Amino acid sequence: MNQRPANELRPTTIEPFPAGAPGSVVITAGKTKVLCTASVQADVPRWIKKDPETGLPTHGWVTAEYSMLPGSTPDRKRRGTDGRSTEIQRLIGRALRAAVDLDKMPGLAITCDCDVLVADGGTRTAAITGAYVALGQALNWAREQGRLEGDPVVSPIAAISVGIIDGVPTLDLDYPLDVRAEVDMNVAMNGEGQFIEVQGTGEQGTFDRVQLDALLDLAQDGIKSLMAIQQQALS
Amino acid sequence: MNQRPANELRPTTIEPFPAGAPGSVVITAGKTKVLCTASVQADVPRWIKKDPETGLPTHGWVTAEYSMLPGSTPDRKRRGTDGRSTEIQRLIGRALRAAVDLDKMPGLAITCDCDVLVADGGTRTAAITGAYVALGQALNWAREQGRLEGDPVVSPIAAISVGIIDGVPTLDLDYPLDVRAEVDMNVAMNGEGQFIEVQGTGEQGTFDRVQLDALLDLAQDGIKSLMAIQQQALS
Amino acid sequence: MNQRPANELRPTTIEPFPAGAPGSVVITAGKTKVLCTASVQADVPRWIKKDPETGLPTHGWVTAEYSMLPGSTPDRKRRGTDGRSTEIQRLIGRALRAAVDLDKMPGLAITCDCDVLVADGGTRTAAITGAYVALGQALNWAREQGRLEGDPVVSPIAAISVGIIDGVPTLDLDYPLDVRAEVDMNVAMNGEGQFIEVQGTGEQGTFDRVQLDALLDLAQDGIKSLMAIQQQALS
Amino acid sequence: MNQRPANELRPTTIEPFPAGAPGSVVITAGKTKVLCTASVQADVPRWIKKDPETGLPTHGWVTAEYSMLPGSTPDRKRRGTDGRSTEIQRLIGRALRAAVDLDKMPGLAITCDCDVLVADGGTRTAAITGAYVALGQALNWAREQGRLEGDPVVSPIAAISVGIIDGVPTLDLDYPLDVRAEVDMNVAMNGEGQFIEVQGTGEQGTFDRVQLDALLDLAQDGIKSLMAIQQQALS
Amino acid sequence: MNQRPANELRPTTIEPFPAGAPGSVVITAGKTKVLCTASVQADVPRWIKKDPETGLPTHGWVTAEYSMLPGSTPDRKRRGTDGRSTEIQRLIGRALRAAVDLDKMPGLAITCDCDVLVADGGTRTAAITGAYVALGQALNWAREQGRLEGDPVVSPIAAISVGIIDGVPTLDLDYPLDVRAEVDMNVAMNGEGQFIEVQGTGEQGTFDRVQLDALLDLAQDGIKSLMAIQQQALS
Amino acid sequence: MNQRPANELRPTTIEPFPAGAPGSVVITAGKTKVLCTASVQADVPRWIKKDPETGLPTHGWVTAEYSMLPGSTPDRKRRGTDGRSTEIQRLIGRALRAAVDLDKMPGLAITCDCDVLVADGGTRTAAITGAYVALGQALNWAREQGRLEGDPVVSPIAAISVGIIDGVPTLDLDYPLDVRAEVDMNVAMNGEGQFIEVQGTGEQGTFDRVQLDALLDLAQDGIKSLMAIQQQALS
Repeated sequence: MNQRPANELRPTTIEPFPAGAPGSVVITAGKTKVLCTASVQADVPRWIKKDPETGLPTHGWVTAEYSMLPGSTPDRKRRGTDGRSTEIQRLIGRALRAAVDLDKMPGLAITCDCDVLVADGGTRTAAITGAYVALGQALNWAREQGRLEGDPVVSPIAAISVGIIDGVPTLDLDYPLDVRAEVDMNVAMNGEGQFIEVQGTGEQGTFDRVQLDALLDLAQDGIKSLMAIQQQALS
Repeated sequence: MNQRPANELRPTTIEPFPAGAPGSVVITAGKTKVLCTASVQADVPRWIKKDPETGLPTHGWVTAEYSMLPGSTPDRKRRGTDGRSTEIQRLIGRALRAAVDLDKMPGLAITCDCDVLVADGGTRTAAITGAYVALGQALNWAREQGRLEGDPVVSPIAAISVGIIDGVPTLDLDYPLDVRAEVDMNVAMNGEGQFIEVQGTGEQGTFDRVQLDALLDLAQDGIKSLMAIQQQALS
Repeated sequence: MNQRPANELRPTTIEPFPAGAPGSVVITAGKTKVLCTASVQADVPRWIKKDPETGLPTHGWVTAEYSMLPGSTPDRKRRGTDGRSTEIQRLIGRALRAAVDLDKMPGLAITCDCDVLVADGGTRTAAITGAYVALGQALNWAREQGRLEGDPVVSPIAAISVGIIDGVPTLDLDYPLDVRAEVDMNVAMNGEGQFIEVQGTGEQGTFDRVQLDALLDLAQDGIKSLMAIQQQALS
Repeated sequence: MNQRPANELRPTTIEPFPAGAPGSVVITAGKTKVLCTASVQADVPRWIKKDPETGLPTHGWVTAEYSMLPGSTPDRKRRGTDGRSTEIQRLIGRALRAAVDLDKMPGLAITCDCDVLVADGGTRTAAITGAYVALGQALNWAREQGRLEGDPVVSPIAAISVGIIDGVPTLDLDYPLDVRAEVDMNVAMNGEGQFIEVQGTGEQGTFDRVQLDALLDLAQDGIKSLMAIQQQALS
Repeated sequence: MNQRPANELRPTTIEPFPAGAPGSVVITAGKTKVLCTASVQADVPRWIKKDPETGLPTHGWVTAEYSMLPGSTPDRKRRGTDGRSTEIQRLIGRALRAAVDLDKMPGLAITCDCDVLVADGGTRTAAITGAYVALGQALNWAREQGRLEGDPVVSPIAAISVGIIDGVPTLDLDYPLDVRAEVDMNVAMNGEGQFIEVQGTGEQGTFDRVQLDALLDLAQDGIKSLMAIQQQALS
Repeated sequence: MNQRPANELRPTTIEPFPAGAPGSVVITAGKTKVLCTASVQADVPRWIKKDPETGLPTHGWVTAEYSMLPGSTPDRKRRGTDGRSTEIQRLIGRALRAAVDLDKMPGLAITCDCDVLVADGGTRTAAITGAYVALGQALNWAREQGRLEGDPVVSPIAAISVGIIDGVPTLDLDYPLDVRAEVDMNVAMNGEGQFIEVQGTGEQGTFDRVQLDALLDLAQDGIKSLMAIQQQALS
């Protein structure tokens, strides 16, 4: 059934979606679909430092929320934040903050909401890849609104999952592959090929340095392809 | 800007959406978009009566949840259930239960999730109208799975909002109309032109019998049109 | 057992109750008893607009909370807000706000608490009818305290339930009638005979225009009688 | 204003109240009014031991909940359980359990709800004194229903507050006295003059053995009077 | 097995513990071990009165939190605050506030956290006794930091449990004794031998004045010994 | 101040602690101290599969909870689970489950509680390393109790943090180092030198393959040393 080569991405698109938020796309990877919106908050969080003279915040903030819609899986997913979604939204937030220089967006607080419409594996990495585009749209909007000067983006970022299936390092796991994976790794990188996050877990197995290297090679190639898709969506 | 005649629906479509749940559509009414999915739960709620002899539940249940995605509005909507969404999901659930004979679906508990992707007024009535279609799809699926015999649907149901704008009874309020409305009414009807729910509120005004009648006339015509769209989506 | 004619109210009284709050009555309708108190809050909600020059709030607010005491029903009712009570307290709040001109009570925030002491049907409409009197008492108190000038009341309001029992439109449903009702409707009106809220539900049936008209006629008569009782309680 | 002698109770009554629960009284002590209801739960708590042979619970349970209605105080009291009410309802529950032999009411779980209608000091002890009567009514009801044989009551119980005001040991503190008290003590006793609970607190002072003795003497006399009132209410 | 005389304390020590908080000790009483830390908060609670001229708080505050670690008992204790811990931490807070003159520590808010590492009875009284020492350390630290002048301590305080076991008044109940106790009493006293808190409960029995006196005598002696240990720990 | 070489562990000990739980140690790494207890639950989680014939669970479970005590840091840490602790306890749980063959401990559910007594960096990896020892003690206890046959441990596991400080790969970051780190990585390995978890984050920077390799080399050496300390603690 799944005849995709182990080193190929699923068919992936990032398309604009006409939501209310200034940044809004749907990313599709195989059957997985995630709606990523980016909203500009009225206020920065209270803990952001203020300039002692002007009283204005000295930098901005980017955060993320992740949720699966109840109908996104064959068995209904209950609403509400559980441990898994908490862990995932922290990962997404960290990755997005690595894409920007927060000092260059003073007073601008952006929340990226990643709502999984259809879940078939790889939702957290699709969320990162899609949210980067929504974040870019929201920054453009803020600039048009006169709430931002210049460009705080330091580098594009994108993420992909890789794993070892029956001993074979494999790119972009869909759900049937994910449940069979001995090792599961999520990798986020920037446009210069450097790592932002590497999260490898061997709950049903362990992995050695050679396997780790093979997985990182696969991820690097996949992320390069995703960045081309992001580029197109933002232009 | 809004040149739509006061007695016309916004352009409305109900399209299948490939979510994980067995019932799944997106209903679009003007700019408003609601994803309606219908999931079949593994178990009926504990309070459903059991047949004393067989120990099996004697009827089924249909319930609904309603939520607005954070990016569905220009100002980000915080996640979580508030008073408004509680009130709305109870309305949706009552309306959907009026569409079926629960005694004809013993042991079958269906949750209809209505997630607002884009909010531009009329989301609760669009949710009812769309969820009826998702419910129908889920019932078909349950029949194919051998979990249901026969057809518990007693009548189609659909809903629409009406209101009084500058003294003029108006059909299908979008958000700019809704904020200007003196009176706001949500009407759910069945295929035989009978009322299931009438919820009229005059928080910024009051209304008399003549106005009430005019609003109900408008609603009746609008709902007839919506039922044709439902019919098509289910066939 | 219940020989009351279908177009008659249950015996109804509204009596002062010596609670701590400045407005406080017990409304009795048949066996149903609701304690309605009205408290003046120290501060208006944060979202009330402030006059840019004076920094003072430009209007006031009225809100309501509804709760059933655990012993109010033969089977103990668990404490805490559920979906039903959320829906009811929003209805009460909207109806009470229709009784006043909020612009004429700047800076005054009043909470009406409706606690059901004995539940035998019609608690939400009794709550509205009683809370209007408590609200009036609290406004008088605020005037005596020098916190209010003039009278923000634009019209009395009251509410009653009506329903269809064995095909017969019936006024003021007690609990045994309510469980048998095919259609259940709550109606709130003002002193000029105009509607403020009409909430009709046919969970166990549907209703047509003729029935709707009959129910509204009954409600109108009942509400007229309730307003005479309110008048007396406030004088 | 308060000319009551330091060794006299406030005027106190315990009257039946027609709530839904099988046990239901209003206790009035001066201005303080507490509605005490006693409901028989459908099931005993899960942790009650079961007889290994019959599978039936070997004893019963009595618990209490305490709450102040929002309008019971001049400044509105927010709904919900806080630390103070948690502490109080645990005290009430312990005192009530001392009145009965739980082994003589197998399978019977009774919840006593104490809702303060008007708060003017001494609400927790009034709650104990009133709830004992409601509990007695509920036990009578259970016997009539055939759910209980015999009488599990081992002794009446009642409670009163005492305190030191300007150095003077004083019985039954109302709110103005309570805020002035250097030492505040709540005492629950049984019909044989033995202590069930003694809770003395000197947050604004300390107390020695002589003062403690004087307070306990006062409490003992007050409780004897309260038991006469209970007796009458139960007969 | 337990051959300790009924009028003797368990072996008790109070030792410094190198936590992050400025006050920090472990109190050991037999097998029971409680970690007591005292942290100085950045701000006083909002409800502390401010001097109208200077805008500065006119006094300070001391509060306590109590928790049992999950592994402190043979059967794992679930995390989170339940009714028992709420009651206990209110007791600890009241006792600690009796040790200081809050007016002499303006603007200083100290939280004493009592975390039970090993639970073998008497944890609430050990928490009071240990937290007094941690509080003293934190006051010393605040003085060194220039955040406090003078000494707000009015008297040392300490607490112990006493109870009646098989009719014998007994000091310092460990867990095996506690479960057998007919009467359980917690007593907090100050350095002048006056009572701060007396909480006696006879859930499995009752007690008379003679027994109460015997218990208070025992407590008084035990507390004197504990204060010597506190003294040493603070010097 | 910190003259420790970049490739050396902080002084580390794992010592037994006499808590109530069957497994219980305190791990100390520099100033950091974590109490790790392992409790055997009465029941396995409901979702554990049951053998269709015997009705008994076919495997066991190991889970973890992580919490910082309020006094563990100079600024008081509020109680309760936040996003960070959720993420950490999921990591600890996954790592511990990699140490055992759950099929060899049917019906045995063990919760490892990691409570940070003193926080000075590296608490999550110290928790993993210490909890492995507590888990081993609990398994021994279960075997003595006759609740377990054989040894489910497949390999020791331990974890350490590594990071890049001023460009230098550094082992075992204390808090002052952690806040300066450009890259922060937590690594868990088993006794055969294979990876169980690799979590690298560059929130303040990025890292390349060469740096990743250097960090993994450091971690591998550190973990080897930790396993010797574990070994000793368990023998």
